[in-house]
Parts: sequence; structure tokens; C-alpha cells
Amino acid sequence: MHPLERATPAEQLAEVTRGTVDLHSADELKAKLERSVKEKKPLIIKAGFDPNRPDLHLGHTLLLTRMRRFQDFGHQVVFLIGDFTAMIGDPSGKNTTRPPLTREEVKVNAETYKEQVFKVLDREQTVVCFNSEWLDALGTEGLIRLASKYPVARMLERDDFKTRFREGRSIALHEFLYPLLQGYDSVALKADVELGATDQLFNLLVGRALMKDYGQAPQVVMTGPILEGLDAKLVDGKITGDKMSKSLDNYVGVNESPEQIFGKLMSITDDLMWRYYELLSRKSTAEIAALKTGHPKVAKVGFAKELVARFHDQAAADRAEADFEARFAKKDLDQAALPLVEVSLEGAAKLPVFKVLAGAQLVQSATEGRKLIKQGGVKVNGEKVSDEKAELPAGEYLVQVGKLRAARVKLG
Amino acid sequence: MHPLERATPAEQLAEVTRGTVDLHSADELKAKLERSVKEKKPLIIKAGFDPNRPDLHLGHTLLLTRMRRFQDFGHQVVFLIGDFTAMIGDPSGKNTTRPPLTREEVKVNAETYKEQVFKVLDREQTVVCFNSEWLDALGTEGLIRLASKYPVARMLERDDFKTRFREGRSIALHEFLYPLLQGYDSVALKADVELGATDQLFNLLVGRALMKDYGQAPQVVMTGPILEGLDAKLVDGKITGDKMSKSLDNYVGVNESPEQIFGKLMSITDDLMWRYYELLSRKSTAEIAALKTGHPKVAKVGFAKELVARFHDQAAADRAEADFEARFAKKDLDQAALPLVEVSLEGAAKLPVFKVLAGAQLVQSATEGRKLIKQGGVKVNGEKVSDEKAELPAGEYLVQVGKLRAARVKLG
Repeated sequence: MHPLERATPAEQLAEVTRGTVDLHSADELKAKLERSVKEKKPLIIKAGFDPNRPDLHLGHTLLLTRMRRFQDFGHQVVFLIGDFTAMIGDPSGKNTTRPPLTREEVKVNAETYKEQVFKVLDREQTVVCFNSEWLDALGTEGLIRLASKYPVARMLERDDFKTRFREGRSIALHEFLYPLLQGYDSVALKADVELGATDQLFNLLVGRALMKDYGQAPQVVMTGPILEGLDAKLVDGKITGDKMSKSLDNYVGVNESPEQIFGKLMSITDDLMWRYYELLSRKSTAEIAALKTGHPKVAKVGFAKELVARFHDQAAADRAEADFEARFAKKDLDQAALPLVEVSLEGAAKLPVFKVLAGAQLVQSATEGRKLIKQGGVKVNGEKVSDEKAELPAGEYLVQVGKLRAARVKLG
Repeated sequence: MHPLERATPAEQLAEVTRGTVDLHSADELKAKLERSVKEKKPLIIKAGFDPNRPDLHLGHTLLLTRMRRFQDFGHQVVFLIGDFTAMIGDPSGKNTTRPPLTREEVKVNAETYKEQVFKVLDREQTVVCFNSEWLDALGTEGLIRLASKYPVARMLERDDFKTRFREGRSIALHEFLYPLLQGYDSVALKADVELGATDQLFNLLVGRALMKDYGQAPQVVMTGPILEGLDAKLVDGKITGDKMSKSLDNYVGVNESPEQIFGKLMSITDDLMWRYYELLSRKSTAEIAALKTGHPKVAKVGFAKELVARFHDQAAADRAEADFEARFAKKDLDQAALPLVEVSLEGAAKLPVFKVLAGAQLVQSATEGRKLIKQGGVKVNGEKVSDEKAELPAGEYLVQVGKLRAARVKLG
């Protein structure tokens, strides 16, 4: 059976649009899927990535998961790295948090990206592209011709431009060119579908409009939601909470250990678990419906294991489950089951708690440790540490960070 | 004496700003002239020309005359041909009257330009440049960096953009890039002064702003008026009338015959003559003041001869004066002094008057003849022709077109 025939066009449509927010348009996507199956010609699925941020968490994999669904039906994914503008940076100099990248840095970041994204994407059905390839070649004349395709007034309809213009805040002219360049990427790739987050809708639609101007069939535009963090919950029938982010410490990192991933995912509410299932699981809608007839705990373990297996492997998923059951299923912390970690006083009489946390690798840095103490998330021997400058002398301690991280620490 | 020392900076300032409408700023221009004289370093005077219009009349030479004044004081003029955008044309396709030019057409037009402009400019002190030289080299990245220097809101302050935006008429994005490219020309040339007509003020100021952004001393911006046509006159203390244009037939063409130029200029009012003196004559302000103490007729003949000498030579100017005096100075038409022209009936019994006019070369085309009859400007044997279809049989006639064109016509 040809890979494109694994599912009917209607089945494909249902799976690839799971959790979609914007879709322009369902009819066009259906027609494209039908023609693809009929002609045994994979669709070209485009998604753009910023080479500035190669440290991915689960929120970033939302888009990758949607790309993967297309791959599961035999379609061709283009992982497009927007190196051209990343190498220019922000020439107006206003955005100092995004310094320009060198060609070498882009390459290194691209490699880091690949290591992470191929935990989700199928390497065989993925083309990695850099848009400098065709944007460099545009030249002054090409960019002028491109700009002639788009009216100023329509560019000012983009929400952030509209607001800034109304409020008298400056918009530099090159900011109007960036959506056009992103749109031109679609022309260059002859994309059938472009995926992005909801905040990219305007830019994706620019690509759709430009393709028509260049005499191509316009791409279908699909946006998905921003993923809610681990602490989100159901309020008035709707999952509510901050978006997943490192700075809010409500994330699962792609490079975290099996135990961390498993433990974090076991901590979410059942409602949020079903939301994550819809958005992140590779299980079909029918399989998920079947799970809903059983016990939520079974579904949650299944989901946590699916994700550990995705980011590590099946054996790691099995071990993480066993480890979790042994340690946390009893609800109370069993000291004996905890790892014993040795932390050196480094010749001093005492060590600040935040350094102990970092030394025991319960946090990634002393700075994170200090922040968590301030937030009241750290306990030593069952008692909350409230002074961020608190110090410990030599000895053995039970140290807990939040609900899921704990260790016996031997300080000496 | 060094050419730059022919006049003091103050004297230079007075002459080069004659008839100026906008000047940003007089202080800066004064400082530049002072430094130029002191360091014996000529200023770079830029003016841009559109390679689409190489058929010049007196109105176009206004700008050239202002450039020439700078040359008379030893400064360096850059005659900049905007070939880059002319070769792109209007990529939005809205402006069909300006089709893109080929590189070959630009070259041909440039040669036609040179033939005409060096009747006004000093060839030795003129550099002819094509802006494709540096605009091609900008590339996608360079154009983005350029665009980052300028805010959208400030671009929308240009009168025509503001009006179109307010009225909901479309502005294509590349139209915002053209003023930037023109401004970048100034950066590339390190211009000290840019000259243009009043409708170019916004674009010239963009160049001034960009030069600051590129760390250069900003160019001084000077605009001059649009020249009024031969039929303009003094109304309420102000010269009033349509601008000079071919379609209004109130022009003097650079390539017209000495007799035509002389006759047309003798036909203007004294008030308009003094205006033309200020804007177009290479006589100094002091010389013009001296002329004003004499008879206007003397001044007018002097001006007409200066212009004929400029576009032809001194001998032609002397001949044109003698010819004019012989024919028209008596106010009444002296038939004997008029040329006798033979026009053929081409086998017919009668010929329409408009064809007679064209045949006698009193007008450039039958269409022009028809128009002038309609306007009441044609007399046959001293009687106005009011019917545009009027015909004449074989015979000899005195035919007059306006005040300045007349001939004896032998029709047969």
C-alpha cells in the first residue's frame, strides 16, 4: 500500500486538523488531500523556525507534532530555518535581545535543532532548508518587485502594527518587509500547507496572498494554539493558565531526563491531560476516545510513557514508570528510596541552601535555586526554607524542590 | 585665482539661492560654502533626473540653471540619472504610462539628455552617474537595512501618501522604498547639496535624514519653483499662470530654432521677463538690477539673446534679433518681410485651413492646427477663422497663427 493511502482523505483531514485554531480553508485542504492521495503525490508542508531558540520544550513540539501527523500520512515536511533575517538581526537596533547571528552560529544552532526535532519528526520525510538560499538571490530589484505586490494599508491591519500605529509608537519600514519575505518563502517552496502558532496567522496569510500573485495555488494556512503550562487547569469548561515557558517553570524540556519528564507529566490534572492528548499524542482520535472509557490514571501513565519514549526510548519510559511508582505512588516521600547525593562544603563551614540545591542537581543553577526559595518551593527536612540566604552546616538532609524533585543530600 | 575664490561665500550664497522656495538650511549652506572656499574643495551638488523624459523645455532647464550657478563658482555637479527604478518600471502595473526601460534605452536617453543639458551645464564640471551602480549592489540585505532607518509613520506624512491613505486608495509597499533609494543616492554620492523642484521636497529631506543615519554630514536641500508658461502674467503682485508644458503650448523647447526661441521670449510680459531673469539668466543679481533702470525692451532683447546663445550660439542670437526686428518690431505685419511658402492642393479644389497651417509649417501637425483654429488663434488675410472645417481654394494668403507665427502662403 502506498503511504499516502494509509488513510482516506477524510480521515487524514480529521487527524491533521486536531486542535487547530485557524484554518484557511478546510475545503481547500480537503481538495489538496484528495488530489494527493489520487495522484500519489505528497503535499509539501512548511513550517518556519527561528534559529535563535534551539532549546525546545513541549510547547515548541506542538507544531512539530502537527507536522508529524502529516508525515504519518506520507506527506513531505519542510523544516525551514529562517537564517536570512536572523543573520541581519534587528538593524534598527531597538531589539537588543536578538543580536545578529553569524553563519557559523546558524549552522551550530541548526544542528542542535536537528538533534531535538528528530525526536518528533521523521528524518526521512523531512527536508531542512535555509531561506537565505533564495532571499539573498532576490536582490534589490527582487525585493522591490516583492514589495509592489502588497499594499501598505493591508500591512497596517496586522494587530501589533495597528496598535503601534494608533498609539504613535514607531514602526520601522523593514518590519513591513519581514512578513513579505516569510511569504516569499512559501512561493519559493511552492508550499501546499503552512503551519504556525496563532500569533503567526497574519504572516501565513501574507504568504497565501503572495502565492496567488505569483500565479501559484495558494497554500492552506493552519494555526494551532499556544500550549498551556503544566499548572493550567479547567476553569468554566476551558483549560486556563499561563503558556508553557521556562521562565515560569511550568514546562517539560525535550532534553530533560526520563524521570523528570515522567514525573512532571504525572503531576498535571486529568483535564489538562486530555488536552495534551489531543494536541501532542500520536494516538488517533479513536484510540483516545477508547482511553476515556477507562481510568484516568492509566491514560496518564500511557501519555507520560509515550512522551518519554518519544524524547528518549521505550526502555527509558518503562524504567521511568517503575521508578515513579516506587517513589511517588505512595504519596509520602520514602527517604530510603531517594538517591543519596554528596555535596562538598568546599572547605567552608556552611553552604547557602541555593548552592546545595545546585550541587545536588535539583536545580540547573544557583540562580534558579535562589528564585525557588523566594517562591517558597524549597523544603529541608520537611520545613520550608524562607530565607534565600539560609545556610546549612555539614550533615545529611532531605531536600525537596516542589512536589517532584527530592534527594537525600550528604553535605561535607 | 582659484575658481572657488571668484566670489565670496556670501556672494555665492546670494546667487545660488536666487528664486529658491525651500532651503534646509541657509546656515548650513553658508557654512559649507565658507569651508569650501577656505579648503579650496568644491561642494558636491546633486540633482536627479528621470531617464524617461529626455525632451527638455525651458521649465526643465530651471534646475539645470541653478546647477550651473554652482558651477560658475567652481563647484562639482553630479547629474544623476535614475536608471535603476526606470528599468524596473512600476512593478505593480498600475502606472501603464511608464513602461520599464531596457538598459539600451536608458543609454540612448542618457545621450539625448547630454546633448541638451550641456547647453546649460559646464561639461568639465559635471559628472554623469547612474544610480544602478550602487543600488544593484545593495541587495536584499542592504535594502532591508536601509528600510530599517525610516519609520512608516514619517513616510505617511508625504502629502500624496497621506491623501491616498486617508481616502482609502491603495499605496503599494514598494512606493515607500523609492524615496529611500533616492535618499541612498545622496549617501552614495556624499552630496553636499541636493537640488530639485518643490514637489521633490519630501524625498530630498529623506536623503538628508538618511545621511545623518549613515554618519555623514546631512546634505543641504534646496527646491526651486515650477516655471510658469509664456502666457503667465502678474496678478495681485504675483506671477500667475499655468506651469510651462508642451501640451499647453506655452513653452520654449531647448531644441527649437533660434527664431522660435527669440520670438516666443519677446512675446512675454515685462513682469514675467523679470521673473525669468531671476530664475533663468546667468547674469548676476547686480547686473539685473542695473538693467531694471533702463528700458524693458532692451532687457527683453538681451534675455532672448542670452537664451538663444545658450541653446544655439551667439551668431544665431544676433541673427534672430535682426530677423525679429525686421519682421515684428513695427508691430504691424509687413507682408513683404514674410517668407513665401508654397503649399500643394494635392490635386483637390480646396484644402482645409488646418492642413494649410501644417503644410506651411506654421504648426507641427494638422491636429495642432485644428486645435488652434478652435481656440480662435488663426487668421487668414487678417480675419479670424472660426470654423475648424473651413477650406481655402488656390490663391495667395497671409496666414497668421497667434502673434508670432505668420507666413505668406501660395496655395496651388
